[in-house]
Formats: sequence, structure tokens, C-alpha cells
Amino acid sequence: MIKAAIFGASGYTGLELLRILAIHPQAEVVEATSRQYKGTPVSEVFPALRGFYDELIFSDPEDLGSAAKADVAFSALPHGASQDVVPELLKKSKVIDLSADFRLRDKETYKTWYGEHKAAHLLSEAVYGLPELYRKHIKGGRLIANPGCYPTSAILALTPLAGKGLIKAGSVIIDSKSGVSGAGRGASIATSFVEVTSGFKAYKIGSHRHTPEIEQELTAAAGDGLKVRFTPHLIPVSRGILTTAYAELKDGLTQAELRDIYTEAYSNERFVRLLPEGSFPDISQVRGSNFCDIGLFIEGSRVTIVSAIDNLVKGASGQAVQNMNIMFGLDETAALFTPPLSI
Amino acid sequence: MIKAAIFGASGYTGLELLRILAIHPQAEVVEATSRQYKGTPVSEVFPALRGFYDELIFSDPEDLGSAAKADVAFSALPHGASQDVVPELLKKSKVIDLSADFRLRDKETYKTWYGEHKAAHLLSEAVYGLPELYRKHIKGGRLIANPGCYPTSAILALTPLAGKGLIKAGSVIIDSKSGVSGAGRGASIATSFVEVTSGFKAYKIGSHRHTPEIEQELTAAAGDGLKVRFTPHLIPVSRGILTTAYAELKDGLTQAELRDIYTEAYSNERFVRLLPEGSFPDISQVRGSNFCDIGLFIEGSRVTIVSAIDNLVKGASGQAVQNMNIMFGLDETAALFTPPLSI
Amino acid sequence: MIKAAIFGASGYTGLELLRILAIHPQAEVVEATSRQYKGTPVSEVFPALRGFYDELIFSDPEDLGSAAKADVAFSALPHGASQDVVPELLKKSKVIDLSADFRLRDKETYKTWYGEHKAAHLLSEAVYGLPELYRKHIKGGRLIANPGCYPTSAILALTPLAGKGLIKAGSVIIDSKSGVSGAGRGASIATSFVEVTSGFKAYKIGSHRHTPEIEQELTAAAGDGLKVRFTPHLIPVSRGILTTAYAELKDGLTQAELRDIYTEAYSNERFVRLLPEGSFPDISQVRGSNFCDIGLFIEGSRVTIVSAIDNLVKGASGQAVQNMNIMFGLDETAALFTPPLSI
Amino acid sequence: MIKAAIFGASGYTGLELLRILAIHPQAEVVEATSRQYKGTPVSEVFPALRGFYDELIFSDPEDLGSAAKADVAFSALPHGASQDVVPELLKKSKVIDLSADFRLRDKETYKTWYGEHKAAHLLSEAVYGLPELYRKHIKGGRLIANPGCYPTSAILALTPLAGKGLIKAGSVIIDSKSGVSGAGRGASIATSFVEVTSGFKAYKIGSHRHTPEIEQELTAAAGDGLKVRFTPHLIPVSRGILTTAYAELKDGLTQAELRDIYTEAYSNERFVRLLPEGSFPDISQVRGSNFCDIGLFIEGSRVTIVSAIDNLVKGASGQAVQNMNIMFGLDETAALFTPPLSI
Repeated sequence: MIKAAIFGASGYTGLELLRILAIHPQAEVVEATSRQYKGTPVSEVFPALRGFYDELIFSDPEDLGSAAKADVAFSALPHGASQDVVPELLKKSKVIDLSADFRLRDKETYKTWYGEHKAAHLLSEAVYGLPELYRKHIKGGRLIANPGCYPTSAILALTPLAGKGLIKAGSVIIDSKSGVSGAGRGASIATSFVEVTSGFKAYKIGSHRHTPEIEQELTAAAGDGLKVRFTPHLIPVSRGILTTAYAELKDGLTQAELRDIYTEAYSNERFVRLLPEGSFPDISQVRGSNFCDIGLFIEGSRVTIVSAIDNLVKGASGQAVQNMNIMFGLDETAALFTPPLSI
Repeated sequence: MIKAAIFGASGYTGLELLRILAIHPQAEVVEATSRQYKGTPVSEVFPALRGFYDELIFSDPEDLGSAAKADVAFSALPHGASQDVVPELLKKSKVIDLSADFRLRDKETYKTWYGEHKAAHLLSEAVYGLPELYRKHIKGGRLIANPGCYPTSAILALTPLAGKGLIKAGSVIIDSKSGVSGAGRGASIATSFVEVTSGFKAYKIGSHRHTPEIEQELTAAAGDGLKVRFTPHLIPVSRGILTTAYAELKDGLTQAELRDIYTEAYSNERFVRLLPEGSFPDISQVRGSNFCDIGLFIEGSRVTIVSAIDNLVKGASGQAVQNMNIMFGLDETAALFTPPLSI
Repeated sequence: MIKAAIFGASGYTGLELLRILAIHPQAEVVEATSRQYKGTPVSEVFPALRGFYDELIFSDPEDLGSAAKADVAFSALPHGASQDVVPELLKKSKVIDLSADFRLRDKETYKTWYGEHKAAHLLSEAVYGLPELYRKHIKGGRLIANPGCYPTSAILALTPLAGKGLIKAGSVIIDSKSGVSGAGRGASIATSFVEVTSGFKAYKIGSHRHTPEIEQELTAAAGDGLKVRFTPHLIPVSRGILTTAYAELKDGLTQAELRDIYTEAYSNERFVRLLPEGSFPDISQVRGSNFCDIGLFIEGSRVTIVSAIDNLVKGASGQAVQNMNIMFGLDETAALFTPPLSI
Repeated sequence: MIKAAIFGASGYTGLELLRILAIHPQAEVVEATSRQYKGTPVSEVFPALRGFYDELIFSDPEDLGSAAKADVAFSALPHGASQDVVPELLKKSKVIDLSADFRLRDKETYKTWYGEHKAAHLLSEAVYGLPELYRKHIKGGRLIANPGCYPTSAILALTPLAGKGLIKAGSVIIDSKSGVSGAGRGASIATSFVEVTSGFKAYKIGSHRHTPEIEQELTAAAGDGLKVRFTPHLIPVSRGILTTAYAELKDGLTQAELRDIYTEAYSNERFVRLLPEGSFPDISQVRGSNFCDIGLFIEGSRVTIVSAIDNLVKGASGQAVQNMNIMFGLDETAALFTPPLSI
């Protein structure tokens, strides 16, 4: 059994790691830290888990020594906090970091969007943990930077086109909509039930920190600078991201040609489901699962690609477990190939 | 124009007072206090109100002097805090208190459930502001204790029977379900969207502070001690309380006799709507309105009475405005007789 | 009192007309037809309205003669059905048609998107009922084609720029999101609670019938063909449309210049609320009201305009009443200037 | 591998059987019938299942011959329809019937609530499929009558007390609240998103067909007639039933004594989770799982027992799979011991 430790386990991505790893046949959670709940049984904070982790008690994150027993450490700490502990964790185990801290390869870009990096020497080593793009690097990786939720949905939607060099510069618009769990588990009026439940809004227009992450990966695929206009919105559901991505191509394609490109990219991917022509994804159909559903539309040179993921699974903890499976040579789908809870 | 001041105006009952008074033909809000938002325009905190109170800025609650300009002061402060300012406010204006501070006539009962009272000398003067029971007292009142949301729904459901002395002691069960706005506007994990939206639960079984308020009024109606078992639940909606009240009667009644009792009680009440036989209320059908809908069911000596209100309107701010209308000799329905936003 | 008849009154736009007209000081509903519910009291079908229309019974739509008593007839019938009755109605009263039947000025465009028109001779007479653009024509109009919900949100968002000739052809993307009531009141699995409540999806990509309506009005404003890419989505809320509109301008503008253009267009409009810089609309803040909130963002020559309306009010029945007010020389805001039910 | 056939597989209990059996290590679905969708691939009707049943096509239910290949047939047909096919199915395989058709042991009671039974000769053979009560009978059973959703929640809440003979006759009140999926998958205005999403109501007061089923089992446990007052309500969520059960005991008990009774009843049950003192269940904490969470409260002789299940899992398809596991000698928890999707 692979022994896993989860740092910052009392947030939603922590809960989701616990939920997924509970049914993993070859891994077990040996430690879960929480500053807020240290000393409290996990099943008291998360009653849904009663019966699964009855011996597990949230431990003090200061007590890093205990991570020694783990083969892999998941950091579900907030960005900024993660870089404080990752260098230490790396001395003892492989690390999968769910924060934004090691996703941007360029130190200056990180500084522009997040501030000074305290462990910048690790940026070049970190592998961007999107298996559909970097499976081989992940396999040999020691530090995995688990992708952001919006970037996962946007990059999977557009890299097949970007990778072929088909996208016209300056034409990409990414209109994304996320469920409320994306804001994390924490008390705030802005994410309270009453404020959110009948609402829908755009936020951080032109300034969301996932923008450089999306641009980094699309640029890497295209081999040329690809700037995007990214607008996130808040949907009154717990889980799910739907991304409606618009781009203009350098040349027109037929529906069939467009489909071929995506089929080539994803036909061997177990977690990407390309929908038939005329079908488009619904976040409910991926809910609770590690799938990314993708639908395609083209008129002349203008494409609309729609993708749907569960932000907590393929957009966070499921992808992290997928990365763990790859790193340790397990079946990549272990604990992950379960049907969505669509209703 | 009647000049109204609202103390603690940045919570949901404050917002609701502002919303209702915005269309009142004979009243205007001249002051709204908020410790948290003092100095901030009301329409910045509540963008829905943009265009209605563009000159109104939240003022400092410490600055009680400004209340001098008001004919009536609404206190939407939390219980405990309200009793600190009400004595002072009463020197200058009539007061309608939306907190629990002046609802219990018995000082000892207050102490048992809430702790020591700091203005207990006012308890005997305060009028329990349920117009259907105390209209005449409200008209002449100086200090109105606006009823709690659960009590409004429970008391309107059961007083017609209690008032006839028909209810068997010890038989009353009040199973109530409330929308999340009943918990107030504040940051907490327990009322965050993600925690609440797919849930439903009972809470404070046997210990909710609205219990003595319900018992006080049912006992007053019955002329004899009427204890109740009260179980509140949380519904994943913003607004609305549905109360399913069960009681055993001393003797059996026919459906027609039961109906006659309620018709006699409420046929002249503009805000109580007695539903036809076989129809039962739905909180959506009173949403945003001051109505209390009531449905009746009887089998032998066992009655089930179902009532529905909007907890923020008939259960709080609408009833407060109804009380203001009565106190100042206005049309009781002014600003209040509007159709529910049922969808 | 202006006498109003509502044809097809048992759908959601019918319910909404009834809700709004219930508080109109100078209008009353004298007739409401419904094929499905003829002979049934209105308050039995819509219990929320109990107390407001207690004498009103749904009448048979075949019995057009009864419309003779009305000064204005609202047709809330589906498109296709409306054109069957509007010619007859026009003989007796002014008509405000909430269907799509008279919105497109070009018969051929209508045919392409909807099929053969049965009353095409009225297309040239019909006035497109968007008061912010056509107030003078509405005032003198006999037949008003009340705008679609998506078009209202998109046109109000973009006409100030289109009207100045600033928008680059081919650059407009309209990513709209609507609440479920936009699909009408009817039994279908697709709009059932369980299917919708945890979902979010795009639909009718590139083929929604509101596309030509949006293009007609933007083109009229620009004086030149303006094609748009329009993608509607479904939000799990009852009410509200948020439109995120993207365009590229022929030349760059500063934030201040952009704001000046919108201020000029809307500063005298009571129902358009231009939000301050950095603020963006939320559908909850216009819920139940006739407002359209607009937020502006620009980077270089790329603008993102976000608008929010309640699809049933400014997107349908509220705008219809606004048109009635204009046609009959009443205060344009009568029955409409009420605060949103934001929570 | 056990071969399973599902009759009436295109409803929500059918979908849920498909979802659960997809991860069952020792069972596979070889046939799924649907009158409405015959000839259509399962994954087209239920896109969430894409990747799991890509070869499975809904077959014609008339074609009963094909069930020959199955070891077990699940009937997810509506009551009334199920009794038409079960006798035939029984000739070829074991049968687990999710309808109400074989739950009532008394033919006359069935007739009173549902009408004439067409396969009444099977009523005495059918085993009531609540494993916590009838595990041994299920093991040897040929025809399992899978319990109703409300009865599962009510019976698990009260049988420990009923079985001890502690409950006072006539004192039981069962106030239950169910998510909308309990109404099945079908087009109706009453269960449409817009009608339900902001609502909460009681329905079928005193007349719901689950009443005799609850009374049958509580009476069987008590050895004496136990009548109940049962009031179902509708919660605006997809899944979950919360039952708040009230009873008066013949004698008072302490909290500890009450707890001992439930501990004795359920300590060996993997799917019943007894919550610690002061904790009460929330439907979100059992969502998507086969658990029944139970919380206890007592004051003198008055108990309040709160139970929560997922109506589609422990209240239907999960319990059906649990019964299959028992009948075939498998691990009772196979495919079922997974953590709830609490958020």
C-alpha cells in the first residue's frame, strides 16, 4: 500500500482527496493535517466520512516530521503557504501540490500575479500535472504542480487546436463558469447560501490569476504566444466548471476535420469523453467524476469548444490521484473510474 | 411623511425593511445605521437598491443623537444588543424591535433562555406585535416587540384552536422548516452555499429559543399552560418557513367545524389566507410577501395545521411595517399588499 | 382605468403580467385566457395571486369577442399562435405581443428562422418595443413587438457602441446565460428539477432563434451589417439573464471614454443602471424588477460588456407594461419602479 | 459474474442501478429495458454513463425472453406494471422488485390503497427486503419486495423502539421530507425546476400510500397494531429523505438507555450509522451512498428520532443491490461501501 499524507486536509480539496482515496485499492491515507481542526477526528469535521477513517485525527501541520511515514504528500494548502512546506516535504517523499505555487514555470510571471516566490529554485523541476499533456514527465516526476480547475477545462478544450498551430493570435476568448466550491471552504458573506443561490455573475474580469497558467500551456502547445481573454463566472451549484471557448482559426475546417483533430488527441484518454456531433456537455454529467466532456462546433473558421469538468475532481483532487497513480506505476484509473452522480 | 430610522440596517431584516419602505407612500427612511459599513453608501452594500436610496449612507450606530429626526425607530440589531439602545430610542420616538429582547413577558423565562436582561423594566410595557392577536394594543403601543419568524408561523397556525380551549395538553408538536436567511447575514461555514445547497437537517432539537415565545402565546390564548415540542429544520432556500403543526383535540371535530373556527378567526385578516379544503401551503406562494397561508386537516380528534410565511416579511420586516402602519393610523396594508414572487 | 386583456395568461409571462398589473394604479386586468385552464379561477392555478384576482376566471381563447372590453391586449401566446389572433385583436384594441411573431422586420428572415408568416402584412407596422431605443415610435404605436429576453440583454449591452459605429465587424461574441423560466411553463424532462438543479450547459449553439433579432437591432444601430456569435446557456435558477458580450473596437478607448458613451446613452433611463467602474452585475440584484444593470470593461480595443436582467420582467412582462405605460401616456415607471428581491 | 437484467431501466431507480452496478466486481448488467427508449443506446439517454455501458442498448420490455440470460431481474417498473411481469420473470431468475407491488403482505390492504392485485398469490412468498430486519429471509428468498423510500427511513428510525414494545399506541408522528427524485423521472409541471426550486410544501397529508407499509412493519416489530400519522413534504433537492419521527414511550428512558437500544440494534450493521449524542443527520452527509444516519433525542417519555437516507440508494437501488449481494452470498457491501458525495 502506498502511504499518503495530506497537508491542509480540512478544505474541500482535502475532503475530496479523502473521499477518493477511501476507495483506492493500493493507497491509504496515513496522515491528514489541519491547523484549524488539529486534534479533532476527521469524521467529526466531515460526517460523510464516518465509517471510513474512524482512526484518523487531524494532526498539526507544524509537526512535519510525521510526514516521514508517507510515500507521497499531497499539499492542499493555499498558494503561498504551500511553497513554505514543499521543499521540506520533498526531502522525504514525492509531492503533489494542489496549490498554484509551482504551476508557472516563469519566476517573473509568478511574481507579477502572486508576488515573490520563496522556493523559486523548484519551479524548473516541477512538472505541470496534466496527464493528457505531460504523462511521461509526471511518471518520472518528484514534484507535480497539479493544474488549476479553470486551466484544466480551458487547456483540454483548446490544446488540440493550439498544438496544430491553427489558432489565430488574439482571437481566444474563454468564458468559464464555475460552481461555488471553487472558492474553497471558508466563511464569507460572498459565498453564503443566501447571497449565491439565486445569482449568477462574472468576477475578476481581465484579472483572474488562472490567466497566465492558461496562456503558458496554450503557448507551449502552439509554440508561439497565445494570449487569451478569460472571464470567470459563478454558478449557483457546488461543483462543476463549464468552459465555452471561442477562437478564430487561421483557416476554415469542416466539422469532420475538427473532430479528427480531437479524436487524435483524446481517443486513448480514459478521462476525456468527446461528445458526438450536436451534443454538448453539461456539468451534471461529470459531477463527482474525473471526466472531462468536450463538445465541438465550427462555422467557417470560427470554433466554439465547450468543456465540462468537476472542479474538485478532474479540476483538483481526482487529477492529483491520477498523477499519483502515474507516478507510482499503478493503473491510471484506480479509484477514479466511477460513474458521475448526474442527479 | 413618517420618518423612520433603522438600527442595524445592514443585515437581512434591515435590507428587507429598506426594500419594503422604498415603496411606502407615507413613510421614508431617514437613517440607517451599521457598525460594519458606517460611511458606506447603502446602495454599495446592497446593489439591488441602487436608484432608491442614492443619498443614504450607513451611519454610525454610536451616534444615537441622529435618531432624533425619526418618528419611529426599527431596531434590527441582534438580541442582547437591542436592549442596549431601545431605552434611549424610546425617549425620542416609537420603537419597533425586531430582536427577541422584548418578546417574553416573563423576566425569569428570558433569563433562562437568553441570560440577564438589561432593560427588564420595559418588558411589561412592550406589546407583542402580532396584529392578528394584538391589533388594539399595537395601535396604542410605544414599544413593539416584533414576533420571531418561527413563532409567527406556529402561533397563527394554532391560536384559533388554542383560543377555543380545544387542544389537549402535551399533544402539540411543531415541526418547522426554515430557509437559510433566518440565520441572518454573516459569514459562517455552516450557512455557506456549498454546505447547505444539497442538504436538509433538523437542528437545536428541544432547545431552540423560539420555544418559550410560542408557548407564551399559545398559553395566553388557551388560558392554560400549553407546552410544545418544537423542532426546527433548515431548507436549502433563501426565504420561507413552513410549519407542520400537530395536535390532539379534547374532542373530535368535522372538517367543516374546524374550518369554521379558522374562518371566524381570520376572515377579516388581509394577510392570512385560509386555503380551501385539500389545499396546503407552499412557501413559494408567499415568497416576498406579507401573507400567511394556512391549510387544515383533521381525522377524528387529530389535527394537522400547515402554515407558510416568508420569514423575512411576515416573519420579520413586513410584520414590522404592518405594526408601524397600525401605530400611525395608516392603512394597515400600505407597502405590503403586493403579490408574492412565486417563481 | 385602462382595461387590459391577457391572451395565453397561464404561462410564466402571463403570471408575471398578472403579478405586475395587480399593483398598477391605472390599469386592471379584465380578461385572461387559457386554453388549458378555461373555466378555472386564476387564483386556483396561481395560488400566489389569491386575494388579488378573486373574481377572475380563465376564459376560452376562442371567445375573442370578449376582448372587446379591453383597451390593450397582451398576447402571451407562443410564437406562431400569436399571429393567428393578433390581426383580430388589433381591430378592437392596441396590442402588445410578447411572442417572437412581429419582432423581425424582414419577412424572409422570419421565414428562415420560424417558417411562413401568416400575418406578414403587419410586420412593417409593428414597433420593436425596446423603450430605450424606440420610445417615440412606441408612443404612437398600435402593435408593439415586445423584445425577446436574450435580445433585450444583448442589445442594451451593445447598442451604445454599435450606434457610434465603433464595433469591428465579425468580432461580436454574445455569451448569454438564462434561468429556467425562459423555457416557459410546461411539462418536460429537460426542465424538470432533478435534471436541471446541479447542471449548467450551453444549448442551441449557433442556432438560437434570438440571433437574427439581435443582429437586426445591432445592425440598425450601426447602420451596417453586424453579425454575432450567440451562445445561450442554462443556469439553475428560475429567473435572470446574464449576458457577457465581447467585441473588438475599430479603435481603442479609455475606460473613461467608454463610460461616457454609456452614460450618454442611459443617464436618462430609469430602468438601466450603469454600475461604477470595477462593479459588474449579478442577476440576483435585478430579480423581480424591470432593471437592466450594465458593467463595463476595456483593455485596449477589446471590450467586455456585462448586462443582467430578469428575463420575465425587463425581458418580457415588465417591458410589456413599460410599453403599455408609454402607449397610454402614463408614468413610464408605473407598477414597475420597485426594488428587486435580491435574496 | 452474476448477470443482471433491469426492467424499466430508464427511470431514476434504473439509472441508479446502472450507476451502482457499473462498479460491482461480481455483477454485470446484461439487459436494460425501456418502453420509451427501446433501441437507443443507454449512454445516449444517460450521458453520465458514457464509457461504462457503451454496448448496452435499451431493449423492448415486451421481449421478456431475453431475460433468460439473467441470474437476477430488477424490476424498476411502476407499481401495477411490475406485477404484470414479475410472475413471468420468476420462472427464469430471482427477482428484486423495486415497485410497491409486493411489499404489503395483506391482499386487502393492498386493494384499499392500490386496487385489485393481479398476482396476489405471490404476496405471501415475497420477502420484505430490508436487510437490517429480514437478512435471513432475503438470503433464501426468490422474490424480494424492495422497501419504499419513506418506509426505509421511518422503519429504521423506529423499529428498535417498536421491537422492544416501548411505543405508546397512537403516539407516532412521522414527519418526512423528500427530495424531488422521489417523484420519478417524468415530465410534469409539478416537478419542474421553476415550480419547485424556491418551494417547500406538505402533500398527500393523511393519504400517502407508504403509510400502510410503515404500519405493517412497525406493527410486525411491536407485535401489536401501531398506527402512524405520516406527512410527506417536498424538499428542493434531488436526493435525500429526512424523517423526523416523534413517539411517546410507555415509560421514560434516559439518553443512555435509548442509545443502548439503538446500539444493540445497529452496531453490526455496516450501513446504519448511529450519530453521537447531540449530533443529528443531514441528507447531504449520506448523498449518493447506501447509509442511513440516525440521531436520537429524548425528554422524559418523548422521543424524537431523526433519520437520513439517499432515497435513490438506501431508499431504492442501493438497497436492491444490497439484497442481491445477500441473495447471492456476496459481500453485502460490494459496490456499496463508498463515501457519500456530501458537497
